[in-house]
Amino acid sequence: MTTDPIALTADLIRCPSVTPEEGGALVLLEKLLSEAGFACTRVDRGGVPNLFARWGERGAKTFGFNGHTDVVPVGDAAAWTHDPFSGDIVDGVLWGRGATDMKSGVGAFAAAAVDFVRETPPEGAIVLAITGDEEGPGHDGTRALLDWMVAEGEAMSVCLVGEPTCPEILGQMMKIGRRGSMTFYIEAEGVQGHSAYPHRAKNPLHGLVDLLGQMTAKPLDEGTEHFEPSTLQITTIDCGNPANNVIPAKARATVNIRFNDAHSSATISAWADGLVEGIEATSGVKFALRTEVSGESFLTPPGEFVALVARAVEAETGVTPELSTSGGTSDARFVKDHCPVLEFGLVGKTMHQVDERIEVEQITALKSIYTRILRDYFA
Amino acid sequence: MTTDPIALTADLIRCPSVTPEEGGALVLLEKLLSEAGFACTRVDRGGVPNLFARWGERGAKTFGFNGHTDVVPVGDAAAWTHDPFSGDIVDGVLWGRGATDMKSGVGAFAAAAVDFVRETPPEGAIVLAITGDEEGPGHDGTRALLDWMVAEGEAMSVCLVGEPTCPEILGQMMKIGRRGSMTFYIEAEGVQGHSAYPHRAKNPLHGLVDLLGQMTAKPLDEGTEHFEPSTLQITTIDCGNPANNVIPAKARATVNIRFNDAHSSATISAWADGLVEGIEATSGVKFALRTEVSGESFLTPPGEFVALVARAVEAETGVTPELSTSGGTSDARFVKDHCPVLEFGLVGKTMHQVDERIEVEQITALKSIYTRILRDYFA
Repeated sequence: MTTDPIALTADLIRCPSVTPEEGGALVLLEKLLSEAGFACTRVDRGGVPNLFARWGERGAKTFGFNGHTDVVPVGDAAAWTHDPFSGDIVDGVLWGRGATDMKSGVGAFAAAAVDFVRETPPEGAIVLAITGDEEGPGHDGTRALLDWMVAEGEAMSVCLVGEPTCPEILGQMMKIGRRGSMTFYIEAEGVQGHSAYPHRAKNPLHGLVDLLGQMTAKPLDEGTEHFEPSTLQITTIDCGNPANNVIPAKARATVNIRFNDAHSSATISAWADGLVEGIEATSGVKFALRTEVSGESFLTPPGEFVALVARAVEAETGVTPELSTSGGTSDARFVKDHCPVLEFGLVGKTMHQVDERIEVEQITALKSIYTRILRDYFA
Repeated sequence: MTTDPIALTADLIRCPSVTPEEGGALVLLEKLLSEAGFACTRVDRGGVPNLFARWGERGAKTFGFNGHTDVVPVGDAAAWTHDPFSGDIVDGVLWGRGATDMKSGVGAFAAAAVDFVRETPPEGAIVLAITGDEEGPGHDGTRALLDWMVAEGEAMSVCLVGEPTCPEILGQMMKIGRRGSMTFYIEAEGVQGHSAYPHRAKNPLHGLVDLLGQMTAKPLDEGTEHFEPSTLQITTIDCGNPANNVIPAKARATVNIRFNDAHSSATISAWADGLVEGIEATSGVKFALRTEVSGESFLTPPGEFVALVARAVEAETGVTPELSTSGGTSDARFVKDHCPVLEFGLVGKTMHQVDERIEVEQITALKSIYTRILRDYFA
């Protein structure tokens, strides 16, 4: 008897687990994994449901899977071709919220792990660390699992995150790192006045334009060996002054930065502080920067673990995966502080969209890839 | 019998003529002027009350006064020491909305004109062109009077606007010109996208910051013989994008420019269009500029008329007036297309404020100055 990853994914889709609702998804997985001999612990924190499951001995050589069962809201429910929580399968396509991001990934690695320990019990351990909050704030999701693992003496030797990573074709891309992400919330304060008498005022917008101009004047870098160039984007500027004869007192802007391994949030903050100091000194405009770091950049450099995963992908799909560090953030940014971490999953084209869906063949193929990775890892 | 400019101003203050309400102010003046032999015509247009009054023959050498009886709103009425429409006089100070801007100016020149034609009827004509909308949109105020005058064959040889012009001491400053004023309403349109993938988007904020940075990079000029340097102020930038992971599609900004006689609104528009074209070509961001011209710059260069007014001010006050072109706009910007125009009035410190007020001595002195100007002009 083998575990059908398609049926499992469809069952998971039927659990309405919009962040931070558990929706029955972790309960379903806990039952499946417990029956296969996994020791399961719910590691809920701050209203977020999380599931830790281990097969084998604590302290052994441990392969870890990480993923999430929470999904983003459905948006306009009426616009969906199939009910977003129906798990309908029509003409080989599975429909529903989470079909690509990432109940299919969880379904594939849970099915692979369960069958693998039944059929060829490895010398070592397999851990599944599954969170119910990756799409939300993420404070009490994978971070809570990792905190708990440290406290309990649990560990993973390596970890594979099952997020969708392939742009067009299964096997096309795996992630060996991710850029870091940080946001500056900038407030500029000057002195209000009449537009006709600017010498009696200090225009915060001029200071802000100067700062943002310097921030965007040239690229942060030209890219590194494994990373694309870092990017910096102004995402809003707001002042709300309706009067064209008034110089406003305050203005604010938000700047989002995706940075590669040439930087850290600390070096970028120091750079921004330097620009601010220079403009404050000449303009008299005062700045307040609030910095929010979503994650530092990280890299699991090409080596044994990377090669093992890449070989398995190629063997199952016939496609050589690109070793990429592109894209947004994922929970790998938390895992990387604990063990080498990679990301590989299916084609994520419809993620977060209305009519999210996936060809069921991809789920079967993904289970095969994960199974081969486990086999090769424990060989 | 002479006309008391203080009582006249107090009576005008008691007329609640907040733009565009007539409030009884023009009716009061029409009565006074008619009784003194002025031919009066109400030149109302678009809901705005205006009064034209001429003593003497049409076509003669004509001295013109221009001013307004409308006032800005009182703001927080409870915060006033005296009711803003009371016209209270306490310890030599007249309180109320319009006490400085500019019912006192109108009161002084109306009293001067009435007494002058009674006591020393000149060879020539005196015109009073008084509007009820200088503080509002101004489309149907002094412009309506001037349009009507052209149509009727009325004219002024010279014109004195009675706006408050003195910063601290009566006699300190007269205006021989004004900067022009124009406003650009800028819309930048790019392509929305994800902050992590800026190559798939076009950030309108980056184009806008580039444009505004170029606009503010260096002064428009260093000033001219009679003018301070032109100024350019960004008065707002707005985008309203709440998501730090989204590149917005649109953003807008407002830029107000006060320009001297080195420019016209046309040359400044051409300059802005040139900057926009350059940024559109390199960034792919599209701009739409809506231009609003409040008035071109103008100058009544030092000469006979300027010298006459300056001598009269100095003779009455002992102060040599500075020949200034500073400050915002006034209705002189409309008059200047018809005849040489100057501005002289009292100290405007409390204009537009709560507790607007004026020392009554200034009103008496202002009447004396206007009287001397009439005498010298017709001598």
